[in-house]
Amino acid sequence: SVDGDRLLMRLKELGNIGRDAGGRLVRLAGSDGDKLGRDLFVCWLSQAGLDVAVDRIGNIFGIWRPAGTEDCQPLMLGSHIDTVINAGIYDGCYGVVAGLEVIQALKAANFRPIRPIAVAAFTNEEGVRFAPDMMGSLVYARGLDVDAALSTVGTDGAILGEELKRIGYAGAEAPGFLKPFAYVELHIEQGPVLEREGIALGAVENLQGISWQRITVEGTANHAGTTPINMRADAGYGAARIIAYLRERARSSATPTVATVGCLELEPNAINVIPSRATLTVDLRDPFEHRLKEESGALGAFLEMLAREEQLLISVEQLAQSSPVAFNREIVQMIEGAAEKRGLTCRRMTSGAGHDAQMIAPIAPTAMIFVPSCGGISHNPAEYTSKADLVAGANVLMDVVRHISSQ
Amino acid sequence: SVDGDRLLMRLKELGNIGRDAGGRLVRLAGSDGDKLGRDLFVCWLSQAGLDVAVDRIGNIFGIWRPAGTEDCQPLMLGSHIDTVINAGIYDGCYGVVAGLEVIQALKAANFRPIRPIAVAAFTNEEGVRFAPDMMGSLVYARGLDVDAALSTVGTDGAILGEELKRIGYAGAEAPGFLKPFAYVELHIEQGPVLEREGIALGAVENLQGISWQRITVEGTANHAGTTPINMRADAGYGAARIIAYLRERARSSATPTVATVGCLELEPNAINVIPSRATLTVDLRDPFEHRLKEESGALGAFLEMLAREEQLLISVEQLAQSSPVAFNREIVQMIEGAAEKRGLTCRRMTSGAGHDAQMIAPIAPTAMIFVPSCGGISHNPAEYTSKADLVAGANVLMDVVRHISSQ
Ligand SMILES: NC(=O)NCCC(=O)O
Ligand SMILES: NC(=O)NCCC(=O)O
Repeated sequence: SVDGDRLLMRLKELGNIGRDAGGRLVRLAGSDGDKLGRDLFVCWLSQAGLDVAVDRIGNIFGIWRPAGTEDCQPLMLGSHIDTVINAGIYDGCYGVVAGLEVIQALKAANFRPIRPIAVAAFTNEEGVRFAPDMMGSLVYARGLDVDAALSTVGTDGAILGEELKRIGYAGAEAPGFLKPFAYVELHIEQGPVLEREGIALGAVENLQGISWQRITVEGTANHAGTTPINMRADAGYGAARIIAYLRERARSSATPTVATVGCLELEPNAINVIPSRATLTVDLRDPFEHRLKEESGALGAFLEMLAREEQLLISVEQLAQSSPVAFNREIVQMIEGAAEKRGLTCRRMTSGAGHDAQMIAPIAPTAMIFVPSCGGISHNPAEYTSKADLVAGANVLMDVVRHISSQ
Repeated sequence: SVDGDRLLMRLKELGNIGRDAGGRLVRLAGSDGDKLGRDLFVCWLSQAGLDVAVDRIGNIFGIWRPAGTEDCQPLMLGSHIDTVINAGIYDGCYGVVAGLEVIQALKAANFRPIRPIAVAAFTNEEGVRFAPDMMGSLVYARGLDVDAALSTVGTDGAILGEELKRIGYAGAEAPGFLKPFAYVELHIEQGPVLEREGIALGAVENLQGISWQRITVEGTANHAGTTPINMRADAGYGAARIIAYLRERARSSATPTVATVGCLELEPNAINVIPSRATLTVDLRDPFEHRLKEESGALGAFLEMLAREEQLLISVEQLAQSSPVAFNREIVQMIEGAAEKRGLTCRRMTSGAGHDAQMIAPIAPTAMIFVPSCGGISHNPAEYTSKADLVAGANVLMDVVRHISSQ
């Protein structure tokens, strides 16, 4: 079994790094906090006797290469250690810390794998500062050109490549330098399903498609007191209509395409000035590609109507787009088998969140393991999973690793 | 007649002060730009041979005290020189610069007034950085305690009193030290009425009541991809519903209470996080007090329903509140008479905007003169009034001043 105390201790230690003056965990990709988090992870890798490698997009790998396995493709575990704004401590970090824990436990038990085992921390999975999300794994799988990714401009105007240089994580390896034999990612569910059904583990068989758009609404700034209602071109009202449209549409379906407006900014943002510009983001998700396309199209038609009716100029920029992904059946079955052997309840499920696993899936057999999230809360400091659930997940990951590296 | 070239030149010179890196005019109250604008105005006052006085809230006065008038109450002209964000160059500055111009023209013509004539630049009329608006004139008329006003915290966390000290305009005079015999304010209309009707001048007989509120909507941050629509407490959606409610309500009436949401901010403002908090401002205006109260009450009831339906916590803070004001009939008639003598068309009208005149009205006979705003545009860099209209307004102001200071 894995060392549950060390697993928890490391999660907490990492979770204390990258906090702002108000105590919020804000370890955004490429930030000073990200550097400190990476430094700690690299220190753990070295202490565990693993080879450390960093590629050009800043992905970090700790590799266990037992004698005789050097020429084999590695089994890869991992996730990410960047966070959203005001995050919890489990999202991403759990998969990375548990991956390392599994390797250390197997080493300690004198397990002899027939192939190397690597643990990865992929760069910028959250996508909060730099879009698209899952960027490091996408580049790794050659789904996005590394130079294009490095030149991404962040929400704060920073350039990812320069930030990676600044924090010392613009590595030398070409992305994709290790071709995984298989990839297994352990993660908190970040949703309410497992808890609601009282099930210990999820064997994740597929993952929703995601579309991220930035919508810019342009109207005319004018005086709040003197401008008749029917003469207004109010960009803020345009934004409100978009938010309301998305919610009403989602509510009108039993299995809706999930839509979220997470960012919204007004200009000039003054109390007695009609907003001249609103910038908002739309996050659409659906397990079915055709429905994602349909909803994107319906939104486009709504925006056209809105622009016409309200004398607004509306433009849309696609920030990220990923298709639904089906994971590898054999690994999913292996997860179910391992859970059963340990007497843990398990169900197949769809991931609502995006994960690095979806980017690696095209280049290697891939699957994911979920553990319950208390209250279904994530991207929130109240994010929580019990120690027992965290340890159970790590043990099942270890069993799957043992299985794949004995084949 | 006034010197139209000097009037225009000064408006342009002042309009070049307080611009940000992007060239936007942002001369917010108490800012570095405000200091530079004040310094220029004080320099003009001194050059014109006027006594300069600054009171504790930073209001600046230039006073012409011909021999023998020292014991009389002054006739006061003026407006403000602070601006909104990305402002035009006429709002406020026109009334201040024209007030000075009228004094200089009368001095040059050897006019002998029977009372002093003063021109005032009141602090923080716009209220964009520090609420309430019309703060300097409100304090001057003892409608707000000066120490309370000085401790106002701005949108950027700055404290007004400290900012005034920092820029050298925390004056020594007690607000109200000059009790005006009468007050006349010349201003651009900032709305479409005069232009639409092809009328040169407005004799402003009353002014709408204004209510400013800050609404805070609190929900729960959660993951955009994993949280079912019916389990969301989405503060951003709450804000959107408020904006839509206000617009629909205004549209359903032929003479609506005008409502504007100018500011809106989300937290954590991240693309894949359901907003946990939205902060927005509501500006309500109506010429009738009872309707303003009714609409405020209706909004309150809507917020209660919304909070219940959407599992949100909603709180409201009143930032500013001013009652509708009726101006002095005699001065309004004087304005009409002066316009007629100069062959200018003139109509009585209601001010949609708030003005310093409304705060001075309780302590002195007060009225306002409006000139047309091209396209009805204000609080926008495209704000424009032709030179001919600006000069016509200043000349009518001069005639009214001559009349009042001969009585
Ligand atoms: N797992 C996770 O939170 N990923 C971030 C990308 C997303 O799903 O928005
Ligand atoms: N005249 C003017 O723009 N005043 C600012 C106060 C307001 O009406 O919002």
